[in-house]
Amino acid sequence: MVQIPNTPASAPPAQRSVPTSADVARLAGVSRATVSYVLNNTSAVRISEPTRRRVHEAAKELGYVPHAAARSLRAGHSRMVLMPAPAIPAGPLYSQFINELQWALSRLDYTVVQYGTLGLHGDEAARAWAELRPVAVLVPGQGLGPQGVAVLKRSGARAVVTLGPASVEGAHALLMDHAAVGQVAGRHLYERGRRRIGVVVPEEPGLEVYSTPRLDGVRQAVHGTDAVVTELPLAYEEEAAARLAARWRALGLDAVFAYNDEYAMLLMRALQDEGVRIPEDTAMIGADDLMLGRLLRPRLSTVHIELPSGRELAELVDRAVRDPGAAPERHEVLGAEVVHRDSS
Amino acid sequence: MVQIPNTPASAPPAQRSVPTSADVARLAGVSRATVSYVLNNTSAVRISEPTRRRVHEAAKELGYVPHAAARSLRAGHSRMVLMPAPAIPAGPLYSQFINELQWALSRLDYTVVQYGTLGLHGDEAARAWAELRPVAVLVPGQGLGPQGVAVLKRSGARAVVTLGPASVEGAHALLMDHAAVGQVAGRHLYERGRRRIGVVVPEEPGLEVYSTPRLDGVRQAVHGTDAVVTELPLAYEEEAAARLAARWRALGLDAVFAYNDEYAMLLMRALQDEGVRIPEDTAMIGADDLMLGRLLRPRLSTVHIELPSGRELAELVDRAVRDPGAAPERHEVLGAEVVHRDSS
Repeated sequence: MVQIPNTPASAPPAQRSVPTSADVARLAGVSRATVSYVLNNTSAVRISEPTRRRVHEAAKELGYVPHAAARSLRAGHSRMVLMPAPAIPAGPLYSQFINELQWALSRLDYTVVQYGTLGLHGDEAARAWAELRPVAVLVPGQGLGPQGVAVLKRSGARAVVTLGPASVEGAHALLMDHAAVGQVAGRHLYERGRRRIGVVVPEEPGLEVYSTPRLDGVRQAVHGTDAVVTELPLAYEEEAAARLAARWRALGLDAVFAYNDEYAMLLMRALQDEGVRIPEDTAMIGADDLMLGRLLRPRLSTVHIELPSGRELAELVDRAVRDPGAAPERHEVLGAEVVHRDSS
Repeated sequence: MVQIPNTPASAPPAQRSVPTSADVARLAGVSRATVSYVLNNTSAVRISEPTRRRVHEAAKELGYVPHAAARSLRAGHSRMVLMPAPAIPAGPLYSQFINELQWALSRLDYTVVQYGTLGLHGDEAARAWAELRPVAVLVPGQGLGPQGVAVLKRSGARAVVTLGPASVEGAHALLMDHAAVGQVAGRHLYERGRRRIGVVVPEEPGLEVYSTPRLDGVRQAVHGTDAVVTELPLAYEEEAAARLAARWRALGLDAVFAYNDEYAMLLMRALQDEGVRIPEDTAMIGADDLMLGRLLRPRLSTVHIELPSGRELAELVDRAVRDPGAAPERHEVLGAEVVHRDSS
């Protein structure tokens, strides 16, 4: 039972005066196709300079801007590369990576759009992204399944690239295995002669995707040795760090991998306030190689993490868009290396 | 002279199998209009439950997702709220604000899209944004002029909201005057008895939008008194901080407002390495009230900055979208308050 709604009494005010390409064509005295070719810089079509100029002047006079959506409907796809915006506050490493990526993609004439997907998960999020008809989708973290990839491809995405610990059927994968971060940290502490190794695991939700493999990495590094690994849940709060520091001697740890440099700073302060000497009583290492680690006393040892460069990722996206039928690529892209300073 | 290009030999592979609403209509045995009403949840149209179910089942079977662009072309506008993505790495305060805003807007059924505009400036950027036909645009910082606002409105944006130090003709303004941050910092140092006040000004490009008004604010706070303000350019690097610290005694300063907590940490470390006692020789205050300030010794005094809540901003956007003809609103939204700790 379908009832057609009444036509609204009037068009909304903001819409009445929106100029169209037909208006531009009329003012310039050319066809709509010509307007489209000129304003979209189609190189396949030769148009005389005076005509080009007339079209640009008419567009300027009317304040006409081409409609990306209409263009993508005509072309069958857009130049939009969609990335879900991170739901957890982005750290400085991630911000820098995104900036680089945007820059590299814009040089290849793509537009990067970060889509807020708070409250959406997995394949449900994929459906929301598909509505924007991006030509490519970059998905950091976990959660997207093969079904989500299929939804995106059916709605016209030529490339789906995941950045995370595992690959997903149908998508290209940049494999970022954070276990490697824990492995080099654990190996370093073991080689410094430490055998009772604590590993900080943040209690903040959303960080498990990093903290779980980092903890696993430390366990792998000392597997089969006499070293013992102890998991240390910690919230990013002074009081929580003070409570952990108060029972430090009872824990009997001689080393700690503090998840990252920020948690290391938090824990170092609390341990020093308790009189625990670093590195004499407890060796400490962080991760991410942030500036603040160099400013601590003792200077903080850390794991320097090498992410894929924005340029490399942009080139993978462009390759995949041009050849959507190609077999999915898989690349291991996370590098991890210890920077040894004074705290370990 | 226009030549029409040849039709491509075949449709691109990813496109051939993209299901359309016509396919869904055929499989469900209903009209395309019915498919559209069901999948877009149009409440104005009554459709029987069995019909709804048939449409949903057909859409699921075919993997059909509605096209936001097509829908926005029909409706005349989208539910897309566009924000330019920041070109400078976003700090934790900004990340939290964006997350809150996304959450609040998604509850009002808007989609927040952050658009990378590296390499585009001012009204040129506005034209790029206009191509996506957002229903509203939120522009942090400076650079958008009245012309850019006009371009956005002519292309269908019902609301343009700027977040920055000044208002722009035709746009709603959330006025965030960072001079207030410098004012409370300068007044605090003056009231602590300090008269020779240094102000750190980051050398990193892109931060002038904050650092210039913060410096001005300190000058305003001590205007007409016997206090003297000295500008201290500083790059966010250990060596630069060490060089500044080496000539600290020659500068003869008894106080410093360090731009923010991160620059304060950098400078505090360099000054302490030079034997400058804080606060005895030099009182120090940062800004942003980050956790790291509480972890420094002495604990860092800071300026706590109150940004508008994501909910308030989302409500302003929604109000403006519903009534695009209303006069632009102006709100002063930045609150600044000193948190006095041990460094000043």
